[in-house]
Amino acid sequence: MRFAKGHGTGNDFLILPDPDDETAIPADLVARLCDRRTGLGADGVLRAVRLPAGGPAEWFMDYRNADGSIAEMCGNGIRVFARYLLGHGLAGGPEIAVATRAGLRQVREEPSGEVTVDMGAPVVLGRSCAVIGGRSHEGLEVSLGNPHLACVVDAPVAGLDLSVPPVIDHERFPDGANVEVVRVRGAACLEMRVHERGSGTTLSCGTGAVAAAVAARAAAPARATASTWAVRVPGGRLVVTLSETTSLLTGPAVIVAEGDVDEAWLSGRAGLTRPPLGRPREQAR
Amino acid sequence: MRFAKGHGTGNDFLILPDPDDETAIPADLVARLCDRRTGLGADGVLRAVRLPAGGPAEWFMDYRNADGSIAEMCGNGIRVFARYLLGHGLAGGPEIAVATRAGLRQVREEPSGEVTVDMGAPVVLGRSCAVIGGRSHEGLEVSLGNPHLACVVDAPVAGLDLSVPPVIDHERFPDGANVEVVRVRGAACLEMRVHERGSGTTLSCGTGAVAAAVAARAAAPARATASTWAVRVPGGRLVVTLSETTSLLTGPAVIVAEGDVDEAWLSGRAGLTRPPLGRPREQAR
Repeated sequence: MRFAKGHGTGNDFLILPDPDDETAIPADLVARLCDRRTGLGADGVLRAVRLPAGGPAEWFMDYRNADGSIAEMCGNGIRVFARYLLGHGLAGGPEIAVATRAGLRQVREEPSGEVTVDMGAPVVLGRSCAVIGGRSHEGLEVSLGNPHLACVVDAPVAGLDLSVPPVIDHERFPDGANVEVVRVRGAACLEMRVHERGSGTTLSCGTGAVAAAVAARAAAPARATASTWAVRVPGGRLVVTLSETTSLLTGPAVIVAEGDVDEAWLSGRAGLTRPPLGRPREQAR
Repeated sequence: MRFAKGHGTGNDFLILPDPDDETAIPADLVARLCDRRTGLGADGVLRAVRLPAGGPAEWFMDYRNADGSIAEMCGNGIRVFARYLLGHGLAGGPEIAVATRAGLRQVREEPSGEVTVDMGAPVVLGRSCAVIGGRSHEGLEVSLGNPHLACVVDAPVAGLDLSVPPVIDHERFPDGANVEVVRVRGAACLEMRVHERGSGTTLSCGTGAVAAAVAARAAAPARATASTWAVRVPGGRLVVTLSETTSLLTGPAVIVAEGDVDEAWLSGRAGLTRPPLGRPREQAR
């Protein structure tokens, strides 16, 4: 099993190229691969499957969370996915369409080398509160396919305790939500931290960055509603561009390494049974 | 740069084969490689350097902690290191000598596939206390090249709070110590958790397992001083054998994957500048 490891602002992924859709990746294998100590380690897995010719996209991104569950989309993941395809000449750039469970997404490699994904139009659903570190913060409910509560705060976001899940209104969010704390740092700049449902605090969240920009714009005086926001996350810097009809997420997308998963490890035999290599090894010496 | 990733009971390592000692790995590169989000991720790096012929060992294990600092020895690391050499026919098994900064170590592949390392004689230095979760626990001071305070407790070790460093006597341990909490579970079985200086709580610690067995033997009634102890750690199970003159550490050693570190990532260019691939990519399509 071939793999690459990459990340976008510290959100990290294993890319598994499987053009002919031959490799099943059951949930327990995904979880084993994503285990940071006994596997390769990642926030999720991106399996690359080639689609039949003639459709709107050549590649399907089969995204799985680290626990093996299926997810629709991942803003940082799709940028790393595109970087991998472009770096291997598996897609013609600089703009490619990628099929996801959330639908078709347009991804573009910028002249700078950063990668932009069109995230679609954020949907503002209302306002509710999150209790973080014993204190209630009002936030904007934003859907980007997945649910967010983006809370604009006055204090440095590093000081807020996200080590335990923020308490949110379960009638408003029956399936939970990602909670962002957002501090506006200027007319076009914000800093953000996030608690992701099911993952806890992460270094970055692509959909969360877009939700944070929507909340920052809503909180800003009318004259300062920038359409482009620099979003500082613990893992780096993203840029979110908001328009009437959609949102764009831009940032670095990095491949760290590539290789092959060990066959014995895949089969669960690694370190438990001894391969019959005694004599050949001695000859090799 | 070629690499393998492996682990022993959840202590994980990057093995960098460098037989001709050609590849410098400065501390900042080690730290980048060991970063679990933006690098490959590991507790440490094991560079494999071939020594001049005719000496007592063919291979030197250049071990670095995840922060890039140099360390003498690593009981789980050397077992994974041996697994890599044997698996690639780079050493004749089942018994090999490995040179480390702490001296020569004998490593053996067992018929079961597990790997044993001779850890040398533990040195008992005395008794002192660690304050863990607000409560003082007496422990045995044991040196295995690195300093340990192994505290035998009556409660399940999972219930002790090791999320903050235990408070120890800095006059006894001027350079700090690994602190083990040990619960004896029978005449030849113990469970252990560890707080490693500089690393925090880890899933396993090879030298800590030996120190724990020494403390368990010292705490046991004279008639029950087993020489072989099954040591349960959060990452799995190790076996420690204590004799008059030395100690042996046995357990699984697993290679998870192998591959190549990305050249652009190594040079720090990854994701930042665009490689001039526009035209060839379009041709490839």
